[in-house]
Amino acid sequence: MFERIALVGIGLIGSSLARVIRRDGLAGTIAISTRSSSTLDQARELDLGDTYHLDPKDAVANADLVIVSVPVGSSGEVAKAIGPALKPGAILTDVGSTKASVIAQMAPEIPDGVHFIPGHPIAGTERSGPDAGFASLFENRWCILTPQAGADEAAVERLAEFWRRCGSNIDVMDPNHHDMVLAIVSHLPHIIAYNIVGTADDLEAVTKSEVIKYSASGFRDFTRLAASDPTMWRDVCLHNRDAILEMLARFSEDLASLQRAVRWGDGDKLFDLFTRTRAIRRSIIEAGQEVDAPDFGRQVVAHPEKA
Amino acid sequence: MFERIALVGIGLIGSSLARVIRRDGLAGTIAISTRSSSTLDQARELDLGDTYHLDPKDAVANADLVIVSVPVGSSGEVAKAIGPALKPGAILTDVGSTKASVIAQMAPEIPDGVHFIPGHPIAGTERSGPDAGFASLFENRWCILTPQAGADEAAVERLAEFWRRCGSNIDVMDPNHHDMVLAIVSHLPHIIAYNIVGTADDLEAVTKSEVIKYSASGFRDFTRLAASDPTMWRDVCLHNRDAILEMLARFSEDLASLQRAVRWGDGDKLFDLFTRTRAIRRSIIEAGQEVDAPDFGRQVVAHPEKA
Repeated sequence: MFERIALVGIGLIGSSLARVIRRDGLAGTIAISTRSSSTLDQARELDLGDTYHLDPKDAVANADLVIVSVPVGSSGEVAKAIGPALKPGAILTDVGSTKASVIAQMAPEIPDGVHFIPGHPIAGTERSGPDAGFASLFENRWCILTPQAGADEAAVERLAEFWRRCGSNIDVMDPNHHDMVLAIVSHLPHIIAYNIVGTADDLEAVTKSEVIKYSASGFRDFTRLAASDPTMWRDVCLHNRDAILEMLARFSEDLASLQRAVRWGDGDKLFDLFTRTRAIRRSIIEAGQEVDAPDFGRQVVAHPEKA
Repeated sequence: MFERIALVGIGLIGSSLARVIRRDGLAGTIAISTRSSSTLDQARELDLGDTYHLDPKDAVANADLVIVSVPVGSSGEVAKAIGPALKPGAILTDVGSTKASVIAQMAPEIPDGVHFIPGHPIAGTERSGPDAGFASLFENRWCILTPQAGADEAAVERLAEFWRRCGSNIDVMDPNHHDMVLAIVSHLPHIIAYNIVGTADDLEAVTKSEVIKYSASGFRDFTRLAASDPTMWRDVCLHNRDAILEMLARFSEDLASLQRAVRWGDGDKLFDLFTRTRAIRRSIIEAGQEVDAPDFGRQVVAHPEKA
């Protein structure tokens, strides 16, 4: 599809892209760049690309597709570094979890004649780093593109086709709407998960050992999101502030109302909420975004003392 | 181990017990009772027991082990119904998620000479009903017993041995401490999950279809707990009120502090919290209470349009 694809940033997303591009022959050459020399060495040992560069300018030179996969707080710095080296007619995209902030940081650095089309694949795991990636990460997931007004339609379609070849379905959306949607489906869940794990970690009356031993009763479900990359999530919180604060306000308001129902023994109110939330999981399973097996299809793990 | 085990209530926990008792020959006879005749028919069709009873008195007569597996709000009613029929020397236990309230409801109804030993297996899935159970549910999980002062040690040990034969590890604990521990590891997570799914369901600016499509970015993890049995969880909220309110207060306090860090752009504070929560998941995996695979080891699901 492309002669040369440059991947700037080679963590979970970048390295998954490298693997699917290589597996399905989506590029003649894969050029990889990351600012940490040890991460670059790791990428080289994993044989993720064809050329390896500490300076992103060297990676993007002559590339016809450039994909920036870095924490959203570093987008502006990366754009500034690569801007002058981008080839006219190249497509530049990113995979950041916030879109308005990324556009504000990157757009001013992009020369005319380069097609800057921001994107966000709705896929990931709690792991990070070049060894965390896998080629099927984007299969049956959605990829949201947020092209700016006046974007070249052929370039948008070419990028959409690239993501389809990676296994994804495409949606096109306004950046601000993207940030509002992601605030509820992704950012708030991560913040809540981090928060509850922090609360449990701080208790005096319940030991850490008890929290760990009995975690199968619910708590462990939250620890997956709370094990996500701290740098990435710090940046998301700082760069989608307004939408996150709006969702946090609604969540807290609802929680206060639920707390009142617990305090005053309003069983009907509790029962009504607990009933209507069931339907949503069913819809997610029907939409192919979740497994239809109890406990996420988790396998029983051997007890270490018995193993 | 026992001549006759009576199971009062045959949902997820009761029917899992029936399956492991049958598979491993832990009883000569399994007597099953539930107050709904359609559920009793379902249990009979699944061949979960040897005798079936709408009146729990008939199930517990002559049983040497009686296990009550009903929503905690029904414990008192069940105890009142079966009390007069219990055999002297029999062991009576339950599996309820709250212990102080269950003891307060059941203890006054139990005749002298019957060993009442409350219990709580820390195991379950989001499914409910007789067809949701499976024999390995209790494997490598903890079962907490909360015997009262003066309980017969041989009876406690006999019940502990029964749970070990079901695959569980045993802890003995004060009922009030149990309720505090479970409030943080189980009750708060369920309430938070129900709440966030409710908040998402109520938005005007984000459609339900968007929440469902993009749920793989975090939200779907919460929907599992929020798909749990509404009656069971209404009763838990009503019967462990004080401990739950205490944990909700701590959670909300921490969330307000986190919200302030988001508002004022305190990246260091966010980074510190997001870093320390990672360690807890690692400990849970090391303790054998969670799978060591990204995404809970979920399998990729085929997209319905492509399948």
